Amino acid sequence: MSRFFSQKYDTLTPYVPGEQPRDRRYIKLNTNESPFPPSKKALEKAEEVLGRLNLYSDPDCKYFREAIAETYGFDPEEVLAVNGSDEALNFAFMAFADEGRPASFPDVTYGFYPVFARLNGIPYREIPLNDAFEITPSDYFNAPGPVVIANPNAQTGIALPMEAIGEIVKQNPGNVVIVDEAYVDFGGESALPLVKKYENLLVIQTFSKSRSLAGARLGFAIGNKALIQDLNTIRCSINPYNVNSVTLAMGIGALSDPEYMKKNAAYIAEIRELTKQALKDLGFTVTESKSNFILAGHPEADGGFLYRELKNRGILIRHFDTERLSQYNRITIGTREQMQVLLEQIKSILQGK
Amino acid sequence: MSRFFSQKYDTLTPYVPGEQPRDRRYIKLNTNESPFPPSKKALEKAEEVLGRLNLYSDPDCKYFREAIAETYGFDPEEVLAVNGSDEALNFAFMAFADEGRPASFPDVTYGFYPVFARLNGIPYREIPLNDAFEITPSDYFNAPGPVVIANPNAQTGIALPMEAIGEIVKQNPGNVVIVDEAYVDFGGESALPLVKKYENLLVIQTFSKSRSLAGARLGFAIGNKALIQDLNTIRCSINPYNVNSVTLAMGIGALSDPEYMKKNAAYIAEIRELTKQALKDLGFTVTESKSNFILAGHPEADGGFLYRELKNRGILIRHFDTERLSQYNRITIGTREQMQVLLEQIKSILQGK
Repeated sequence: MSRFFSQKYDTLTPYVPGEQPRDRRYIKLNTNESPFPPSKKALEKAEEVLGRLNLYSDPDCKYFREAIAETYGFDPEEVLAVNGSDEALNFAFMAFADEGRPASFPDVTYGFYPVFARLNGIPYREIPLNDAFEITPSDYFNAPGPVVIANPNAQTGIALPMEAIGEIVKQNPGNVVIVDEAYVDFGGESALPLVKKYENLLVIQTFSKSRSLAGARLGFAIGNKALIQDLNTIRCSINPYNVNSVTLAMGIGALSDPEYMKKNAAYIAEIRELTKQALKDLGFTVTESKSNFILAGHPEADGGFLYRELKNRGILIRHFDTERLSQYNRITIGTREQMQVLLEQIKSILQGK
Repeated sequence: MSRFFSQKYDTLTPYVPGEQPRDRRYIKLNTNESPFPPSKKALEKAEEVLGRLNLYSDPDCKYFREAIAETYGFDPEEVLAVNGSDEALNFAFMAFADEGRPASFPDVTYGFYPVFARLNGIPYREIPLNDAFEITPSDYFNAPGPVVIANPNAQTGIALPMEAIGEIVKQNPGNVVIVDEAYVDFGGESALPLVKKYENLLVIQTFSKSRSLAGARLGFAIGNKALIQDLNTIRCSINPYNVNSVTLAMGIGALSDPEYMKKNAAYIAEIRELTKQALKDLGFTVTESKSNFILAGHPEADGGFLYRELKNRGILIRHFDTERLSQYNRITIGTREQMQVLLEQIKSILQGK
């Protein structure tokens, strides 16, 4: 830290993303990426704009927002485009929470939420999941400020039905409820139909998972026009050209190929169910994930030990060294072949103990 | 504005970028873009990564930072990679200014500086340029907080020599001096050699102008390791995957082709000097710009009038409706052919008055 760093931030601990190692090739099951490349239609759209990158990207992201609006049945003014959905989350924390309106989110969820809160000087409550790692909706009724729910939830993959989300939104008439649907395409139920009904609901999605564009950085938020206008005030005061031209073009291409996304998501869901069962057969406790990952723990194998052993064997999974998760690991669902290698290595590690 | 918007931001006026119209084709001389496409080496690098975008971009931007470090003679830990240089500017305002350390910058400069200050609750002083639109270095000695100098300066294009920047840095031992060198490649003198000497100097550059990558969004900051570490604390608390993989690859490609950048910058500088003279011959006052734009005003033609007339005729330039600039327009230097059309249309407008 330099002697010039503002006291506002000098105790800030940044978010630590999953490893992106450059030293060797791993079977990479640690950051919930898709094992499939982007849609060919996305690649074609990218080719069209590469030679014109001397011109700025569109600060209004007009054509991309129109494509999202058409895909999901909204007006373009109800859509915000962002440089990865993390950016929308930060804008939402800035816009709708403050010292007098603390944020509420589960104790086990996306680890970036408390970082966004601390970054922006926002107090927050971490509400414990129940013993089965489930969210209890009534815990979030009449909250003192914005509610942030990942659905399916991060780390566990467990999903709430739309009705439960609707009840949380209804019981928070004075707060914005932010639903982070990064993983919704793998079996969750989206809250998007509720946006027309509730002025205080903001839904955030990403192109990083089901649409295979993590490296392009693209996300979006959908909410009523006034909420989106607030987020645009923030966005245009930070970085009006936040999404680059190649990414906008690829997003439009990906949206024009819904079959490819659906096929990939269905494949992942199928492999997820097979992997769940295989891990249960090996004695693991596995969450009922509706996402592209599962949370799995073994009564006789420490989570950190299993993570390190697998890394030595060329397989990366994600370990969280927190009180509630230290016995578990989060495993991204890859291809059938990748999961077979994983299961063989886990068997071998458990036998060697 | 929604009823949920935080009072912290409810009077915030976002930055208004130059028009990026989609309705018709213009000769676009309003946002200081390069008239030349990106380097072929940048395009080749982009092709290599498109099919792998299902994987996240490198949150450390390792290879790009190494390429910058090698190009400019620094250590990779002295380099920060950003999603356009605006992002680095915002991070620097966040990190090095606060309520007790107001920012200082010229009254005529990049219009985003006051927006960053207001966004972050930072008081600021706008120090008037002299009557010739020049910065007086001693105005910035012993400032009460960070100093932000665009060099060459935005809107005027007028450059300070490295020595003058060094003196401002030396006379601010308690503050970070942020030098925004977006336009340096067109004839300015970079302060980068001073980074080794002063721990309180941060230099920010962009790939949007001389390197023809405005639409890819890429910038970087160079400073001593402690300053860069502070900026990384901010970056990783907002968006650790801030720069996408295609852009990082294109940046590396562009750096590997310095001749292309130098050739384009030299062409622009040559056309700039010819355009300056031609406008002077028409009675304009023109700034001694070392950038890829000029600021020009005519004693008998209102700046806004000229802007609107040219827009009607298919040429976009930038008009700033502020007290000191209303009589002027900022004109990006395009190709020889574009500037000929511009000059003919200006002649025609002046004759028609």
